[in-house]
Amino acid sequence: MTEPLRVGLAGLGTVGVGVIKMLQAHGGTIAARAGRPIEIVAVSARNRGRNRGVDISGYRWCDDPVELARDPEIDVVVELIGGADGPARALTETALKAGRGVITANKAMIAEHGNALARLADASGATLAYEAAVAGGIPIVKALREGLAGNRIERVYGILNGTCNYILTTMRATGRPFATVLDEAQQLGYAEADPTFDVDGIDAAHKLSILASIAFGSEIDFAGVYVEGIRHVSPVDIAFAEELNYRIKLIGSARRTEQGIEQRVHPCMIPLAAPIAHVEGVFNAVVAQGDFVDDSIYTGRGAGEGPTASAVLADLIDLAAGRRAPTLGTPASALVPARRSPMDSHTGAYYVRLTVRDQPGVIAAVSAILRDAEISMEAIIQRGRDPDNIVPVVMTTHVTEESAMRQALSQIDALPAMAQPACMIRIEAL
Amino acid sequence: MTEPLRVGLAGLGTVGVGVIKMLQAHGGTIAARAGRPIEIVAVSARNRGRNRGVDISGYRWCDDPVELARDPEIDVVVELIGGADGPARALTETALKAGRGVITANKAMIAEHGNALARLADASGATLAYEAAVAGGIPIVKALREGLAGNRIERVYGILNGTCNYILTTMRATGRPFATVLDEAQQLGYAEADPTFDVDGIDAAHKLSILASIAFGSEIDFAGVYVEGIRHVSPVDIAFAEELNYRIKLIGSARRTEQGIEQRVHPCMIPLAAPIAHVEGVFNAVVAQGDFVDDSIYTGRGAGEGPTASAVLADLIDLAAGRRAPTLGTPASALVPARRSPMDSHTGAYYVRLTVRDQPGVIAAVSAILRDAEISMEAIIQRGRDPDNIVPVVMTTHVTEESAMRQALSQIDALPAMAQPACMIRIEAL
Repeated sequence: MTEPLRVGLAGLGTVGVGVIKMLQAHGGTIAARAGRPIEIVAVSARNRGRNRGVDISGYRWCDDPVELARDPEIDVVVELIGGADGPARALTETALKAGRGVITANKAMIAEHGNALARLADASGATLAYEAAVAGGIPIVKALREGLAGNRIERVYGILNGTCNYILTTMRATGRPFATVLDEAQQLGYAEADPTFDVDGIDAAHKLSILASIAFGSEIDFAGVYVEGIRHVSPVDIAFAEELNYRIKLIGSARRTEQGIEQRVHPCMIPLAAPIAHVEGVFNAVVAQGDFVDDSIYTGRGAGEGPTASAVLADLIDLAAGRRAPTLGTPASALVPARRSPMDSHTGAYYVRLTVRDQPGVIAAVSAILRDAEISMEAIIQRGRDPDNIVPVVMTTHVTEESAMRQALSQIDALPAMAQPACMIRIEAL
Repeated sequence: MTEPLRVGLAGLGTVGVGVIKMLQAHGGTIAARAGRPIEIVAVSARNRGRNRGVDISGYRWCDDPVELARDPEIDVVVELIGGADGPARALTETALKAGRGVITANKAMIAEHGNALARLADASGATLAYEAAVAGGIPIVKALREGLAGNRIERVYGILNGTCNYILTTMRATGRPFATVLDEAQQLGYAEADPTFDVDGIDAAHKLSILASIAFGSEIDFAGVYVEGIRHVSPVDIAFAEELNYRIKLIGSARRTEQGIEQRVHPCMIPLAAPIAHVEGVFNAVVAQGDFVDDSIYTGRGAGEGPTASAVLADLIDLAAGRRAPTLGTPASALVPARRSPMDSHTGAYYVRLTVRDQPGVIAAVSAILRDAEISMEAIIQRGRDPDNIVPVVMTTHVTEESAMRQALSQIDALPAMAQPACMIRIEAL
């Protein structure tokens, strides 16, 4: 095993450059840990001439990334192109069919096509690894697939999107509204020019569906994730959360229920006593709950050049050392189809903020709707009473069912005293 | 690879029973993840007849655990006897020499004999795995050895002893002194009848020396760990810590310095802003700082039947699946000798509590000693002035060198106004 592992690198953006830097910086210790050297032999990207701050003159250049997947002098392709389909998918399928390993940071591709790709990998005996696709700074794929493999995992959840966590952290620290903070995050490079994938929860849903599959031994079911983003979270809600001893986080949660697997991504009120309430800024955190291990919690940077390159290197070192595991922890043929637990039957406590024209009798009307829906109120906060003006009224409920809550909210929204639709944020008892 | 992995289990205490329960509960999914069944074929313990709450009648009984290491029908021995030497070591050496794998939870044995055992394992090609030896509920050995393997790790530190963390957490919650809380912890089973290994920091030092070796690619140097326990931490210190926005934790820290590797275990004041300040009770937490990954933080239960069994099973599944890594992350022949950075040259800030007979001029005398030692004070708190009686005076310093601090403290202790030796707790800037 002293022959080098020969790598073809597709995609020379931030992460690709990070991988090159890491191999150039630590090639010797990496070879000692892996049992043999890891060498980039060829690269592919859109623009050959662009200055990337690293020397790529020693690597063969391919205009077409799919060439890397067909090259007999390449043992493994590192796919850092991105996108669920297109060249990333073509490259991955071609390599796996040829029995060539693929290491990828592509959460969209794994979330949408991971089941089929895992079958391809199993059929040819090739490795498909994607530690970098979920929270780069946290080796959570390995932890679930290997470190906790003896457990029945009951639930896996956490802060899966660093952009949203940065925005929510900054909104709390500064009191500024979502749109302003998003602007800043874009200027700082913490949010993309098109922030949709991040702030609307899709990126977190991609990651959650992958973690759920590994945790539960079920097929990936990205389409089964209930998704809400953070655009509707306002500074008012963040201030009320503080007052109620909560912190608002975008949480992805997958849990076994009697009906199947409940997967959801949405803003949550997290009790301050929970360790992940204190995970701030661009950091991610994942909690796995196993029947023997209890809570096992992982925190680290979710993205960026260094952390993501670190995850790619971990997969490369495993491959070089001959360490293999089924793509999704369980062989593809043994994965069970994902049975969905519908969001309507989710149960939990709720925070609801109403924007009320301060008229007598509004609280009575709202209370009657909740009573009729058999929803029990835990607390109600109304402050700054101001006749003829608009005031926020905040309620928290005891545990109830999502369907009941939704029905009550639609009735509340129809009350003439409501100046805006209610803002509802779920409360997580962790 | 459908032949079962045949296990000999030595030691049927809490963890051994946990391993049996886990295999009995999840044998099917474990086989799917491992690629083949894992079966206990023989067991050994001191007392054959004892009721352990699990059925062991299906396993062959061996009176002498070392028999398991010589048995050609056994692929791997799980060593849960404990103790750095004696039968645990005899069993481990015999098995490794015979090319038979060993999985152990024995931190004392790995800390004291790990270098030699790693060489034995490398020589025969057998696996020696010990995830259960360090923070059972946290797959930190795997994370350092594989998940972060591409990084240069600059520092690894954390809360490595659940008993101490439980005691410190309970002291803070109740205001009760160390001895009372230790008693309770013993009654609850969170502390051993002889608590020395835990409360004097030795157990944490064992674990730290193992993590340091994996992190830095250096030989284990347990004898090089500076160790202080928690017996001297008083409720007064805990209350002052709160006031100063710190929390007192027993921390094990290993760091690369210019002189070598600094390894130390002692109580620390941790800023409340640091996530591990919020890791309470019997939970452990480990922070690894890598040059590419930045902070990667792991939290979970440190010990107990379930978490430790979970770690043993992870090692068994790796072995069954054919996943191998060098014992200490790097082949034994490539580990560098540990160069020690002496505690005297440690630099940091300090908390010092003096117990002073309230005489005029004491503060002036103390200040003069610190000034002459070139130690700069950050804050001083004196409260409840009470002439003729004994009062606590608390000081915090800016960053200084341990040797200067120690010299100043010996001069301060010699002042006639001191009713007791000073209590010094290091402040960690995390």
